[in-house]
Amino acid sequence: MELPAPEQLKQSLYVPNKTLMGPGPSNCTQRVLDSLSNPVLGHMHPECFEIMDDIKAGVKYLFQTKNTATMCISGSGHAGMETAFVNLVEDGDVVLLACTGLWGYRAAEMVKRLNGDVRYVESRFGHALSLKEIEFAFEGHKPQVFFIAQGDSSTGILQPQLKEIGELCEKYKCLFVVDTVASLGGVEFLMDAWKVDMAYTGSQKVLGAPAGITPVSFSDRAIARIKARKSYVKSYYFDALLVGQYWNCFDTPRIYHHTISSTLLYGLREALAQFCALGRKNVIHRHQECSHRLQCGVEEIGLEMFVVKANDRLPTVNTIKVPAGVEWQKVSQYAMRKYKLEISGGLGPTAEQVFRIGLMGANATYERVDLVLNILHEAIQSTKFVEKSKI
Amino acid sequence: MELPAPEQLKQSLYVPNKTLMGPGPSNCTQRVLDSLSNPVLGHMHPECFEIMDDIKAGVKYLFQTKNTATMCISGSGHAGMETAFVNLVEDGDVVLLACTGLWGYRAAEMVKRLNGDVRYVESRFGHALSLKEIEFAFEGHKPQVFFIAQGDSSTGILQPQLKEIGELCEKYKCLFVVDTVASLGGVEFLMDAWKVDMAYTGSQKVLGAPAGITPVSFSDRAIARIKARKSYVKSYYFDALLVGQYWNCFDTPRIYHHTISSTLLYGLREALAQFCALGRKNVIHRHQECSHRLQCGVEEIGLEMFVVKANDRLPTVNTIKVPAGVEWQKVSQYAMRKYKLEISGGLGPTAEQVFRIGLMGANATYERVDLVLNILHEAIQSTKFVEKSKI
Repeated sequence: MELPAPEQLKQSLYVPNKTLMGPGPSNCTQRVLDSLSNPVLGHMHPECFEIMDDIKAGVKYLFQTKNTATMCISGSGHAGMETAFVNLVEDGDVVLLACTGLWGYRAAEMVKRLNGDVRYVESRFGHALSLKEIEFAFEGHKPQVFFIAQGDSSTGILQPQLKEIGELCEKYKCLFVVDTVASLGGVEFLMDAWKVDMAYTGSQKVLGAPAGITPVSFSDRAIARIKARKSYVKSYYFDALLVGQYWNCFDTPRIYHHTISSTLLYGLREALAQFCALGRKNVIHRHQECSHRLQCGVEEIGLEMFVVKANDRLPTVNTIKVPAGVEWQKVSQYAMRKYKLEISGGLGPTAEQVFRIGLMGANATYERVDLVLNILHEAIQSTKFVEKSKI
Repeated sequence: MELPAPEQLKQSLYVPNKTLMGPGPSNCTQRVLDSLSNPVLGHMHPECFEIMDDIKAGVKYLFQTKNTATMCISGSGHAGMETAFVNLVEDGDVVLLACTGLWGYRAAEMVKRLNGDVRYVESRFGHALSLKEIEFAFEGHKPQVFFIAQGDSSTGILQPQLKEIGELCEKYKCLFVVDTVASLGGVEFLMDAWKVDMAYTGSQKVLGAPAGITPVSFSDRAIARIKARKSYVKSYYFDALLVGQYWNCFDTPRIYHHTISSTLLYGLREALAQFCALGRKNVIHRHQECSHRLQCGVEEIGLEMFVVKANDRLPTVNTIKVPAGVEWQKVSQYAMRKYKLEISGGLGPTAEQVFRIGLMGANATYERVDLVLNILHEAIQSTKFVEKSKI
């Protein structure tokens, strides 16, 4: 009655080499890919701890923070989001979620499960939120926690004025949580100066490391709030005080919390090393220049950006309106089939309505911008031609 | 006021090549390591889905199950444990935890956070549980969920009679959760035949893939229980119905749930392919032969196994009593310093009392058994010699 071994595992693994210019993951550099083949290390070996210390230093630089509670979660960006709420929210806490696209609603799915009291402040379609709108919502809801995505990858909206929002949070004695998954490294972010209490980012976007390990940081205020909780943090795996002990963030001995993936540590360490070597400001500047070139090119080929104001546009994930009469899926399929190039469609509120073009990390170069513009143009023309020839 | 880039990231990454014969991770084969350097793939790309399907087929074979809800969690083995409880436990549910070492108590840490009503059935030190002890606990506690580790890596105890425990669970209408992190591939495990409702294992043990991705499987009974919950599953990230939709386990379209690490998929896929090529029964047999050889050798060099009955000994993680007058840490340090060989000390209830020697995957060979025995003997002698020469 033994179930047999599956036939399909007799084939060898084949992985195509694609140019990943959707909203992420982006391509890793060869240095990062090479690092992944290093032998594995034990999760309590001193060499592993040293790599974790390197990463912690790199993440502090990345976030521009001195927070001792800076660490990584062994999971994807969604795990970073869950780590924010499971630690900071208790039953009945009012959590105000800013929605400039999908991510505020995704956060709601987590907060509801934790018995948080979810409130929303929603931007007009295609716009960032104004400070007035946010302050009005603070007045009405008196939240304990405020969440916003600096860059919403579903709409390509960049939320400006995080510094001013940080001041609002301080005024209303509210913890300030910022999702920087899609934005960090592409725009300015100053965790300490802007009084952000919890931030997380993605490894697989601007950094160009593999997914599966997620940098997070908690302010001292956030840690104090966690220590003052009346109830348990509902997750062991995401408990910031335990994960932080493993990452040697506090004045306590390191504990064995879970078996970290040394493989993912290697990739993230090398990606951070490359980021540091280039310099934070240079990387941000390069991403902005690339997005500017893309936006000019989009106009030249007769297309239109989705986000109304230029200042509200995220340089890392660029959203372009799908022109009337064009099926986005055919364009995307054409680019992939002919050039192994990823151009994505919309997500959530922008589904069917936009193309999303990622300019992140190794793909934030003028060459890649020109490549993606040429292919996008060609793909749109070719699908139009097919449509006409069918008639 | 810019915080500067850390100096330490100017150094290049150096990873030593160790022989990992502690309780895990074990060494990966070169085939697995090589696969990790493949270019990353998007989490919604068809090639990624194909690899996930390969893995699902391999995991079904590994667990010997036809469960449609067979998938992986993007996290370590601890994430697998949390996935079990966060899905299956609601407020006030009685959860009976079998303790033959650390893992029952670790499970308690999770269940308490979820407002489960924790009960224990504890074995005598160095022994597995008897069926009588377990049935007595069932009578007394009437649990909704029963948890046991097939192999407890902290004590090296193998719990036999899982088939009979499965029948008990059925009789008491209780869900049967089995931790197979340290045991799977080293001893027989028949998920369906033994009526196990939820099982998870580690990627980094017998399989020899990197840590960070954890195979799990839920029976139809378990899925029905989840669907009948009165309250939300408290985690979005570990929600089996959502993760299962991403893994195409149900008759619903695939959803985007989180960004899976294609890198870790490659390693796990190749590790499963090797496991399938060798054949499940052959791999189990090899692990048992190796442990037998180790146990004979331990006796020959005048040491004693920690687990009293030979039948209760886990072949994958072998626990050996630290002889009187020997400091385990010095032995462990000697082996690492001189041979880059990992021999671990105890954990939790066995701290300071045992050596733990892992024979898993690529390290379950006679050559490695003889190597570790020789080095263990030499290390013990050398620390004794140092002690004497000090006097």
